[in-house]
Amino acid sequence: MTDPRKHDKSHPPGRRDQGGLTHLADDGSAAMVDVTSKARTSRKAVAHGFLRCSRRAFRLLVDGGNPKGDVQQVARVAGIMGGKRAGELIPLCHLLPAASVRVDVEPDASIPGLRVIATATITERTGVEMEALTAVSVALLTAYDMLKAVDRGMTIESVRLEEKSGGRSGSWRRE
Amino acid sequence: MTDPRKHDKSHPPGRRDQGGLTHLADDGSAAMVDVTSKARTSRKAVAHGFLRCSRRAFRLLVDGGNPKGDVQQVARVAGIMGGKRAGELIPLCHLLPAASVRVDVEPDASIPGLRVIATATITERTGVEMEALTAVSVALLTAYDMLKAVDRGMTIESVRLEEKSGGRSGSWRRE
Amino acid sequence: MTDPRKHDKSHPPGRRDQGGLTHLADDGSAAMVDVTSKARTSRKAVAHGFLRCSRRAFRLLVDGGNPKGDVQQVARVAGIMGGKRAGELIPLCHLLPAASVRVDVEPDASIPGLRVIATATITERTGVEMEALTAVSVALLTAYDMLKAVDRGMTIESVRLEEKSGGRSGSWRRE
Amino acid sequence: MTDPRKHDKSHPPGRRDQGGLTHLADDGSAAMVDVTSKARTSRKAVAHGFLRCSRRAFRLLVDGGNPKGDVQQVARVAGIMGGKRAGELIPLCHLLPAASVRVDVEPDASIPGLRVIATATITERTGVEMEALTAVSVALLTAYDMLKAVDRGMTIESVRLEEKSGGRSGSWRRE
Amino acid sequence: MTDPRKHDKSHPPGRRDQGGLTHLADDGSAAMVDVTSKARTSRKAVAHGFLRCSRRAFRLLVDGGNPKGDVQQVARVAGIMGGKRAGELIPLCHLLPAASVRVDVEPDASIPGLRVIATATITERTGVEMEALTAVSVALLTAYDMLKAVDRGMTIESVRLEEKSGGRSGSWRRE
Amino acid sequence: MTDPRKHDKSHPPGRRDQGGLTHLADDGSAAMVDVTSKARTSRKAVAHGFLRCSRRAFRLLVDGGNPKGDVQQVARVAGIMGGKRAGELIPLCHLLPAASVRVDVEPDASIPGLRVIATATITERTGVEMEALTAVSVALLTAYDMLKAVDRGMTIESVRLEEKSGGRSGSWRRE
Repeated sequence: MTDPRKHDKSHPPGRRDQGGLTHLADDGSAAMVDVTSKARTSRKAVAHGFLRCSRRAFRLLVDGGNPKGDVQQVARVAGIMGGKRAGELIPLCHLLPAASVRVDVEPDASIPGLRVIATATITERTGVEMEALTAVSVALLTAYDMLKAVDRGMTIESVRLEEKSGGRSGSWRRE
Repeated sequence: MTDPRKHDKSHPPGRRDQGGLTHLADDGSAAMVDVTSKARTSRKAVAHGFLRCSRRAFRLLVDGGNPKGDVQQVARVAGIMGGKRAGELIPLCHLLPAASVRVDVEPDASIPGLRVIATATITERTGVEMEALTAVSVALLTAYDMLKAVDRGMTIESVRLEEKSGGRSGSWRRE
Repeated sequence: MTDPRKHDKSHPPGRRDQGGLTHLADDGSAAMVDVTSKARTSRKAVAHGFLRCSRRAFRLLVDGGNPKGDVQQVARVAGIMGGKRAGELIPLCHLLPAASVRVDVEPDASIPGLRVIATATITERTGVEMEALTAVSVALLTAYDMLKAVDRGMTIESVRLEEKSGGRSGSWRRE
Repeated sequence: MTDPRKHDKSHPPGRRDQGGLTHLADDGSAAMVDVTSKARTSRKAVAHGFLRCSRRAFRLLVDGGNPKGDVQQVARVAGIMGGKRAGELIPLCHLLPAASVRVDVEPDASIPGLRVIATATITERTGVEMEALTAVSVALLTAYDMLKAVDRGMTIESVRLEEKSGGRSGSWRRE
Repeated sequence: MTDPRKHDKSHPPGRRDQGGLTHLADDGSAAMVDVTSKARTSRKAVAHGFLRCSRRAFRLLVDGGNPKGDVQQVARVAGIMGGKRAGELIPLCHLLPAASVRVDVEPDASIPGLRVIATATITERTGVEMEALTAVSVALLTAYDMLKAVDRGMTIESVRLEEKSGGRSGSWRRE
Repeated sequence: MTDPRKHDKSHPPGRRDQGGLTHLADDGSAAMVDVTSKARTSRKAVAHGFLRCSRRAFRLLVDGGNPKGDVQQVARVAGIMGGKRAGELIPLCHLLPAASVRVDVEPDASIPGLRVIATATITERTGVEMEALTAVSVALLTAYDMLKAVDRGMTIESVRLEEKSGGRSGSWRRE
């Protein structure tokens, strides 16, 4: 029987050449990036996305089918809760429990549809991009679920990172 | 003290006028749709979405930065697991545990990026659109997570239902 | 080594004497009740509870500290989501995923505080009392969390079943 | 299309006037409190609650229907596990994973019923009141579930914080 | 852009040749088995496993270090809860929420250690082997966790199915 | 009514005599170990286990029934995700969210079967043995699930810690 300790590669941090896929070990198999040697710093990420719906669904949403703003409210709460669970849903993403997540959901007639923006902040060894992006995705799926009886053809579009700051790779901002 | 039973509206099934928002009770507040009077039938939903990345990230994905196809494999597994948990993430969506979820993840040079298609089937009183759409979203978020060190600017696009069948509202197919 | 099959007691259904504890096996150890021989029928449960707060917290909640009704909305969504997860939180409770949960959250000056009523319905082999009671508890905990900066001394009171129907034991209603 | 970054309010920490609702952003919508600027200190919270049952259920619990103390044991384990998941159940509550939770469950003839006390400790940027209160609630729901075949009319009462220490707001103790 | 519906293979049920891997689609990729065409029947599975520890740890467990039998009790509750979540942990396993799980945990001096037996029953379209095996595994991991301060060298052994009944493939019993 | 604060034993750290069960309070009841006074240090654990299958199942796994290596890939992803959730499954185990988990899954003809090795690293106040052992167990259960149509008689064997480092108790290595 082979010695299992020979297999222990202690979380090889992935290809070190610039721009390599950090989640792949040297043999190409998937692995979480070991973050124990990173510094614990304040990090922030902002993500964005929208749901495009029919004119009719949009009118119901804004004018009267939705008098108390419930779609926005439920989507916002679901987005916050979903963002906190990013590390449970995404295999190679760390659970980052003390993350703070904020979600804004607003109707936008120019789409027409709902626009979602999520901000996630944390003081940790790794970033919160996935928390922000997951919050946006779950908020949009929730809005889809609540509106689908009116319009099954809605599409989720442009789920993307807008900016991030903190961490070794520094700040990034969408041009 | 008021009698709590007066407040019991027994899950009002939402606005009955055609095309109303079924998740809103008569007073506009959010509520799950009561499905106990619906028939248990075989239902199916197919959803689709894609991740658009840079040419450089795409080459790494296809040519060599990813020799064992791991991004696709991990995204597929994550999508299946995420789809099963739709009812946990989306507030007014029923948990539909015996759902079967299939996820396909394929590189597509015409994007360039990854295309994801998920199919969910179940025999239940309510449909599996949200399982299929959640599977697509989680698979795409997983791919984003694995590729983000190479390209932070990637966007998730066109997450949408392609077709559904079964249930009272009958079949639907994107035109 | 003993034969493991001798230990198999096939889910003894608990003490059969009237009023015994159905979750205890013959030897007194905890066990889930086997429900495979029960009929799948429509079942419903209504539960109730309230949060008592200070006059000052109540004014903030009703008059102005909470202009968009957010505490009620967030508590309602959290209650629905919590109710769906009763079987995950409560060891000997079955997961009952297709349950529909409705939660109402209303300020009540006579407490003063918030009153929560939850209704859960399902067509299954076992009841939804725990879904309704868990929904009430999680909604109240959420309200506590959102108001605790104003009043740490709030108390959750009278979390209780109001009525249930369906199933072998028939209907029950609080006198 | 509007610039999503304009919507980024970076987790406004809530109304700053004394006693405001910290979970509401300036526009009244719900948001998690950003805790990245808070100090990581040792924090502790103690919470309490009880389940009131009939004399008959209490006798079964204490005298013989429950010879190995299982209701208490199962409720204790469920309470610990539930307390760890407070941040998953309560929307605006942070996940605080390294929290330690202790739960005591004791029959009390003066109720008659079961009394639950939970203590949660952590070294973090935000407190563990919700972990302690959730542990109490889940332990009481578990006891209700195990005893409900004997007495459906039981009520959960007086779920409340007893004391907290650590953090910017200092110590608090119920008078 | 290719037509996503071409990719829809509607959950191919896997290789049909006798004894093939049912979780692999025709192209070898992983997929959940579609169970919608299977009959809903009563199914049962019994699984077994044990934890081998040092003589010293065993004495503490049995004689005095554990006067109230807590390791067994906590392991039993954890096993039940873990078994219910098999479908959440195992990617291609269906969530089977109405499953009933029973777990027995007993010290066995002949190992020396703890023996765990779990029985899972359900009326569904697919079996409960994974619920029973997961219950055993989680119960054993829990016992390891509680005893590891005394003996880090403990091993989990012989986690295996003992018997299953119900479903198309009929009954099976370990020889 | 008794004063609940009298019951507050503030997480007694367990029996202090050498080698006692740290998860048991002075009265023998289960409790999580309070770790707030421990130092936050870098910790690592390596665990191992294997699945023994029939020669026929092994051939299918290696030669052709599994052309894309899916069983290994799916088991690896499931193991990573399961390892991150150890604290959710195991009652007295802390949630340790920033843990990094790596899982290797390899066929081994000498068993015949699959060998799994998991490494978990973290910088925290308590160790990651349970994350590594849970990752191994979930990976093995996943492989069982994918192969069970070919061989129901497979057994999970030798799930055990191989080494740990970091923390007050120092390094440990299986002899």
